[in-house]
Amino acid sequence: MILYSVPGSCSFASHVALEMAGADYEVRLAPREQGRTAEDFFEINPKGRVPALVTPDGLLTETPAILCYISQTYSQAKLAPMSNPWLFAQVQSFSAYLCATVHVAHAHGHRGYRWADQEASFQDMTRKVPQTMGACFRLIEKEMLQGPWVLGEDFSVCDIYLLAIARWLEADKVDTTSLSKVLDHRARMLRLPDVQKVLAEEQDLALSG
Amino acid sequence: MILYSVPGSCSFASHVALEMAGADYEVRLAPREQGRTAEDFFEINPKGRVPALVTPDGLLTETPAILCYISQTYSQAKLAPMSNPWLFAQVQSFSAYLCATVHVAHAHGHRGYRWADQEASFQDMTRKVPQTMGACFRLIEKEMLQGPWVLGEDFSVCDIYLLAIARWLEADKVDTTSLSKVLDHRARMLRLPDVQKVLAEEQDLALSG
Repeated sequence: MILYSVPGSCSFASHVALEMAGADYEVRLAPREQGRTAEDFFEINPKGRVPALVTPDGLLTETPAILCYISQTYSQAKLAPMSNPWLFAQVQSFSAYLCATVHVAHAHGHRGYRWADQEASFQDMTRKVPQTMGACFRLIEKEMLQGPWVLGEDFSVCDIYLLAIARWLEADKVDTTSLSKVLDHRARMLRLPDVQKVLAEEQDLALSG
Repeated sequence: MILYSVPGSCSFASHVALEMAGADYEVRLAPREQGRTAEDFFEINPKGRVPALVTPDGLLTETPAILCYISQTYSQAKLAPMSNPWLFAQVQSFSAYLCATVHVAHAHGHRGYRWADQEASFQDMTRKVPQTMGACFRLIEKEMLQGPWVLGEDFSVCDIYLLAIARWLEADKVDTTSLSKVLDHRARMLRLPDVQKVLAEEQDLALSG
């Protein structure tokens, strides 16, 4: 499989999941131009976004779908409790919150042009990011992150996806004083050998671009 | 199960899925104040959003998760191809696109306060909705809706979720001239008896509020 990625982006989650699953994969840098996706990447992925995973069956996009696909295809890695409808629904719910609310809040910091046209609107959106991302992460801290892992005792793709987005907290100027569980989770995740390997690969990828 | 819903919102998808699954459920109106969720609803759902499904196991939120949970719990209704990792990944990918990109584009029409603070920014965002929603639906028309159903020959929760969001096209002032497959899909969906029953229940719910 081939994963198209941008270092520092949410494609990090798919990269870590592939590594933890023991998949046979290659990571390629999605072509960029002036901080946006280059036009020729749209020929690979009509959405023009990462992550984009080329599988034997075809192209797969969207982080929640890629994480689910890797979990189901490499079931021996036990990355998602798919046989338990309630627990699996928790995975889907957490992923949906991260992609549709948290990632979207973050994206308003630098991608305001997706939803508005005026420079003043972009600045207004950027100013609000510490507040919106802060509210999201306080909800995660209080209501979602059961500990030690997101779902409780069992590690899952939720932990991988949370790490990918929790890496943005400082850049998004979020006040982390009330986020002790999130910060502890992130620190534990960053110590995992598979995560460290992917971080190194991401660094190589960034330097190759 | 109890589904908290707002007529006309995306909770319509969960409502239709419960009906098609033959589930034993009740629909309740989420309390509203001045077009926003009332404070006391946050005691039921800390996110303060619909859909929110009260299940025997606990509260479940986020449309992709609720659709997946209903599909898996009422597997005889065949609403998602969960045993086929590739097809199931397509369901997840489609749901993620609808919740994180299409619904988010729509929400900028009237919920700009989620991501900005200035009235001028809200107006800027509202003006862009026909363009962003149009681009999303052209991508759905061209790349995703295989026909006759989203996944091809087999009906799935993708069709239900698409209907919920395609109901917003006119209100969002989208130019639908190049969306013949989407409009045909919507018309066929609206003729299904289960959908008609839910539309009537939604109408009753709106009048009761």
